Amino acid sequence: MSKGITPRAEDYSRWYNDIVQKAELAEHAPVKGCMVIRPYGYAIWENIQKRLDARIKETGAQNAYFPMLIPESFLNKEADHVEGFAPECAVVTHGGGKKLEEPLMLRPTSETIICHMFSKWIQSWRDLPMMINQWANVIRWEKRPRLFLRTTEFLWQEGHTCHATREEAQAEALQMLEVYREFAEMQLAIPVLTGTKSESEKFAGAVNTYPIEAMMQDRKALQAGTSHLLGENFSKAFDIKFQNKDGEMAYAWQTSWGVTTRLIGAVIMSHSDDNGLVLPPQIAPIRVVIVPIVKKDADVTRLMTVCENLRNALPASTTLLDDREQYSPGWKFNEWEQKGVPIRIEIGPREVDGNTVIVQRRDTLEKKAVSLEGIETFIEELLVEIQENLLERSKKFLTDNTFDVEDYAEFKKIMNGDGGFVRASWCGEAACENQAKTDTMATIRVLPFDQPDKHGPCVICGKPGKHLAVFAKSY
Amino acid sequence: MSKGITPRAEDYSRWYNDIVQKAELAEHAPVKGCMVIRPYGYAIWENIQKRLDARIKETGAQNAYFPMLIPESFLNKEADHVEGFAPECAVVTHGGGKKLEEPLMLRPTSETIICHMFSKWIQSWRDLPMMINQWANVIRWEKRPRLFLRTTEFLWQEGHTCHATREEAQAEALQMLEVYREFAEMQLAIPVLTGTKSESEKFAGAVNTYPIEAMMQDRKALQAGTSHLLGENFSKAFDIKFQNKDGEMAYAWQTSWGVTTRLIGAVIMSHSDDNGLVLPPQIAPIRVVIVPIVKKDADVTRLMTVCENLRNALPASTTLLDDREQYSPGWKFNEWEQKGVPIRIEIGPREVDGNTVIVQRRDTLEKKAVSLEGIETFIEELLVEIQENLLERSKKFLTDNTFDVEDYAEFKKIMNGDGGFVRASWCGEAACENQAKTDTMATIRVLPFDQPDKHGPCVICGKPGKHLAVFAKSY
Repeated sequence: MSKGITPRAEDYSRWYNDIVQKAELAEHAPVKGCMVIRPYGYAIWENIQKRLDARIKETGAQNAYFPMLIPESFLNKEADHVEGFAPECAVVTHGGGKKLEEPLMLRPTSETIICHMFSKWIQSWRDLPMMINQWANVIRWEKRPRLFLRTTEFLWQEGHTCHATREEAQAEALQMLEVYREFAEMQLAIPVLTGTKSESEKFAGAVNTYPIEAMMQDRKALQAGTSHLLGENFSKAFDIKFQNKDGEMAYAWQTSWGVTTRLIGAVIMSHSDDNGLVLPPQIAPIRVVIVPIVKKDADVTRLMTVCENLRNALPASTTLLDDREQYSPGWKFNEWEQKGVPIRIEIGPREVDGNTVIVQRRDTLEKKAVSLEGIETFIEELLVEIQENLLERSKKFLTDNTFDVEDYAEFKKIMNGDGGFVRASWCGEAACENQAKTDTMATIRVLPFDQPDKHGPCVICGKPGKHLAVFAKSY
Repeated sequence: MSKGITPRAEDYSRWYNDIVQKAELAEHAPVKGCMVIRPYGYAIWENIQKRLDARIKETGAQNAYFPMLIPESFLNKEADHVEGFAPECAVVTHGGGKKLEEPLMLRPTSETIICHMFSKWIQSWRDLPMMINQWANVIRWEKRPRLFLRTTEFLWQEGHTCHATREEAQAEALQMLEVYREFAEMQLAIPVLTGTKSESEKFAGAVNTYPIEAMMQDRKALQAGTSHLLGENFSKAFDIKFQNKDGEMAYAWQTSWGVTTRLIGAVIMSHSDDNGLVLPPQIAPIRVVIVPIVKKDADVTRLMTVCENLRNALPASTTLLDDREQYSPGWKFNEWEQKGVPIRIEIGPREVDGNTVIVQRRDTLEKKAVSLEGIETFIEELLVEIQENLLERSKKFLTDNTFDVEDYAEFKKIMNGDGGFVRASWCGEAACENQAKTDTMATIRVLPFDQPDKHGPCVICGKPGKHLAVFAKSY
């Protein structure tokens, strides 16, 4: 067990906070609810950004930037939207030394300002589809903040698209959900469920919300990204009309979709252990750290030459030779373990003599001697293996903790016990969702796309079931 | 002359706005002073970011993210800083449906919040230097907004560093100034003057401000970036202390440095002409556009094959084949000219027959037939030539419009006439700066590093000169 990290089994919440702190990922800011993302945490975000940005651009969306200050009146234009977001808004009342005539909101999300601009830019079917993405900060007032998971200010990308038909908009919303699903699995090594949100859990102003839902190591669900079919709700509120091919005026069909710095919280809670952070190689700022074991009376120059040659043989941007003299090898082992570097290589005089190195993988903590001959290929393959192992481990955990339940007593026993995902029939009534929430704190995370032909009775009320639902407690 | 662009000689300000609009770079947002950066403008910013970010990281700085919300009390800690920035601040008074106990400022710059964190992170000389950079949005209330040049919200990078000695901090400030100077010249093709700001023009809270100053085509100066030696001003206000190698406690020596989306304004005003935007190839989102000239009765398949082969032979990320069928070649020529694409290639049936293409360069508008044999090399070299030509042209303009002046009547004649940069002796008194500003609107842009051994009398008051100063009207 690592110094200063509370064991996960003892206190999950403190374990999480300890990992964030020891890995120097983030800190609470002086303003309650806000966070400082430290360089190591931000480097993970940059890796997420770089890879996801490329995927988003491949779909044809273009990046742009819209203002953070939004007139209060804009928020009021879409009824559900204002109801959902007004309570979370931060309000600017003074600027340039004067009281403002109209208060300004700090964007909690940018549908309103972007739709205002869409209404100017879109005239004809030739202007469609219009697909915009923005990387930005947003503000949603948070009363119970947790670093990365719930913060008053967070970073995200938000995509906003307009289409000529409902079918095209629907296809776009599902395409982006698939981009997120694949990104979570292949880059973050986090398996996710996809499907539709129930009415009570959908985005304020959307027709449908499609989430990716992941299971954390405490068996709670974490909504890791969402894609929304907005239908014509915003285009009617903001008058986004176009002349279609038949010469008639029609409202645009819209989507929006986003993921946030919360993904970093998802990575931490999916893979880490009592020694600290565990990072999937794909998004690790440092994939390989080389630690020289300097011994008195040994040939230091020769040792450092071997270390430097190895560093130079591995990819420069993700390999670190930790040659700091003021820290001992043990201190360094602990630091890089806490920071979740996927592979550690130790080289001492004995290794130099034997033309070998000691390789430790972070995911399993297995250690072994490896020949320097062909080490580049060995490391390359081991990184792939670690990435795959993390995904497989998470998949197994998800499977092992997902239960098919037909009986409400069992439902309650699971939710009030160790927790997990419960797959069960649901009648479609909000009353039953509320009942389950009252009894167990669990909510419907998603209605999976893959639905059975026939539904059993609702697990809560016993009336005829309409949907297969996945219930869980969540972040 | 291009459709819809006011000639530069007729109305410089309208010319600028027309270019921004026709090239679809940005628009005014509904909140006065704010702007929407459209995809084509944002793609330029992404190119600036990508290249500058790599340069910043090469110096050893790491990216991080600090909150946009800053307690009002933080701003008050450094006396000059609050005096300079309080009048420009936007103030959040309500959040989460409640009036806040302490108003929050939207960051106008992040010295205060970052120094607060530095004071926690820095204990020992071992923690130094600490070099942090952030890409973020900032808010400074703007009464006379101009797209890219002066906006209430703008995007920027801000670097903040702590060092053990004044000498190291000074070296860092000058290193970053050199990074900016080289970036402006080599990437943006904008020659700049460097040096020190006068007391009255320096950053609020700095010991010294080092700017890069460029000359726009109306002969006004534009401050395109700044690097500040903050000395111990902020470390004393925020208690950033470290134990030095002798075991004594000392205040850290600091710098900060930044460039903003204003750079896009600088690019527009440095190179563009009456046909629209002219972009240096290094930061152009599209470097080469291929326009097929489809003629009736000609073999369209054969033509398009030639176009596609050429597109595939050139770098994918910066080459566009404009195969839209709903627009005529003339319409496309106009669009890409207005958008400043460095090279346009036209291919019609005659070119296909002759195994040639027509190449037009945007900077000089010269057109010529070029063989398809070896076209990749030709284009590559032409892009280099265009980049160099834009820099040389701007250098010549700067030189031609910089005047050594000893007489105040001549000074006023130049400033109240065509304008330009005036190099002249200055006594060092703010009264003379104010006099010049009252008489001509010109201010001291920079005291060049390269100073003569002896100074003539102050061009304004005639008393002994202490500095060679460069005066100009400015944005």
